[in-house]
Amino acid sequence: MQFSVTILGAGSATPTLTRHPSAQLITYDNDCFLVDCGEGTQFQMLAYRMRPSRLKAVFISHLHGDHYFGLIGLLSSLNLGGRTEDLRLFGPRGLDEILTLHFKLSQTPLQFLVHFQELSPDAPALIFDHPHFTVSTIPLDHRIPCTGFLFREKPRQRNLIKEKLSEDIPFEYLRLLKEGRDVYDESGHLLLGVAEYTLPAPPPRSYAYCSDTRYDERLVEYVRGVNLLYHEATFGDDLAHQATERFHATAREAGIIARKAQVQQLLIGHFSSRYKTFEMLLAQAQEAFSATAIAEEGTTFAVGI
Amino acid sequence: MQFSVTILGAGSATPTLTRHPSAQLITYDNDCFLVDCGEGTQFQMLAYRMRPSRLKAVFISHLHGDHYFGLIGLLSSLNLGGRTEDLRLFGPRGLDEILTLHFKLSQTPLQFLVHFQELSPDAPALIFDHPHFTVSTIPLDHRIPCTGFLFREKPRQRNLIKEKLSEDIPFEYLRLLKEGRDVYDESGHLLLGVAEYTLPAPPPRSYAYCSDTRYDERLVEYVRGVNLLYHEATFGDDLAHQATERFHATAREAGIIARKAQVQQLLIGHFSSRYKTFEMLLAQAQEAFSATAIAEEGTTFAVGI
Repeated sequence: MQFSVTILGAGSATPTLTRHPSAQLITYDNDCFLVDCGEGTQFQMLAYRMRPSRLKAVFISHLHGDHYFGLIGLLSSLNLGGRTEDLRLFGPRGLDEILTLHFKLSQTPLQFLVHFQELSPDAPALIFDHPHFTVSTIPLDHRIPCTGFLFREKPRQRNLIKEKLSEDIPFEYLRLLKEGRDVYDESGHLLLGVAEYTLPAPPPRSYAYCSDTRYDERLVEYVRGVNLLYHEATFGDDLAHQATERFHATAREAGIIARKAQVQQLLIGHFSSRYKTFEMLLAQAQEAFSATAIAEEGTTFAVGI
Repeated sequence: MQFSVTILGAGSATPTLTRHPSAQLITYDNDCFLVDCGEGTQFQMLAYRMRPSRLKAVFISHLHGDHYFGLIGLLSSLNLGGRTEDLRLFGPRGLDEILTLHFKLSQTPLQFLVHFQELSPDAPALIFDHPHFTVSTIPLDHRIPCTGFLFREKPRQRNLIKEKLSEDIPFEYLRLLKEGRDVYDESGHLLLGVAEYTLPAPPPRSYAYCSDTRYDERLVEYVRGVNLLYHEATFGDDLAHQATERFHATAREAGIIARKAQVQQLLIGHFSSRYKTFEMLLAQAQEAFSATAIAEEGTTFAVGI
């Protein structure tokens, strides 16, 4: 099943001609999930042909504008588009108040329910339980309450060895095999053995999103061993002192977290608008952790294998 | 002095890949003024290289999202950009409440003052007095309180006949002539006569912005004789019944208002996203009023001559 991250925006607070504010679309099979929703996210979804009907939940990390100013417009357009399916929304205290005020003043009753759940920035918490994965918060060290999000897949099913299985085997038998259960006939004889007809389940995959944070060693434990880590990298070594003052991280610090946490791959973004090219930032992160890539807008990254 | 209107967005509520929500930049000499500010307006200003420092005031017609969701992002970016100059903001009741809530929750104190003036949608009112023009509201007939804006230039100065004037004439004499006053020497002899050295002042120019309104005959008086009229044209003849129900106008109705008000030129926009091309809408408006153009994004229209 597809498990991927598409970068819709990876700029920082000051917009530029080429970088949109933060937004990522997480795709799991047929379901989509937004992580942060900066201004213009709905246009980016249009540009990359993402079907809004697949959107199941939105996760907002914090209430700095470059992470949520697009939410009200997105919800309005979902409403105009005729959505009736509930939408789950996770975010900091106050986000629901903002939305309620906007919709009251525009005299626009939404035709679908938004289930809002307020996030606590103090400790990791399980907030979302999907049939195939969970989402937990990651406390981050930013100027205002801010949480990252950890998408962790549940144990996956064993892979069938299709060459060994004839086409007329009942679907129910295949289901049992994938779940790791041997198949017996009515008199208790083994029909199909898990060991013979399946391969072990691939390991569960995981994605951690760490928007807007200072270098914070606590993260090492929170994101240990994830397949894909997004970590902000607002500054380069040249402005490391500003990173600390402004509750942001450097590219190198993102690399250090990735290395210490032994993740598989690191994505960096949220670069300050003062950087016109990102080679230097990438190089500095790669000095700490070689499997680093830039979160290029429009690019889809697979989570694990 | 330049007096022009640049279209930043002229789409309607549902965004499309090619149309941004409503926003226009009015330029008068070195000053700029925003009329409506849909989501993404700040990106459009970047794309068209508009200097935010020139922005003196923002006028919001009503609180449907496609007319103001970009305001909070624009103000945030002005703040990040270091603005200290006051900004005037005109809009419906409640707009200030929205902004205050956003900035409170993001713990972002603005470094510049926003002077908010609440607009009454009931009757035309003078709301802004610039040295060279005034802005008045235009009551519109929409589903929620909504006002258009009439920019009306003050009487202009006479034009100097430069060929007749030597280069060493004191600046003060030229100023008097442009104001229509003869110039005398200390003993009271006529030095420079207005009739000989100047041509009459060109007529004052005017621009009327009518966003989101049903066909409303009151508009004919409000916008009579303006040089340039922007009038929404959400629907074509095929959906005239929807126009009335939804408090919008057809392209033909925009043309009828323009003809009855004897304006010089009509701009139409705010087309429903169901129209993929606009030739039909333009043709229907032109059947009522031939001097009609489409408010193409990125295009700058001069107001009068």
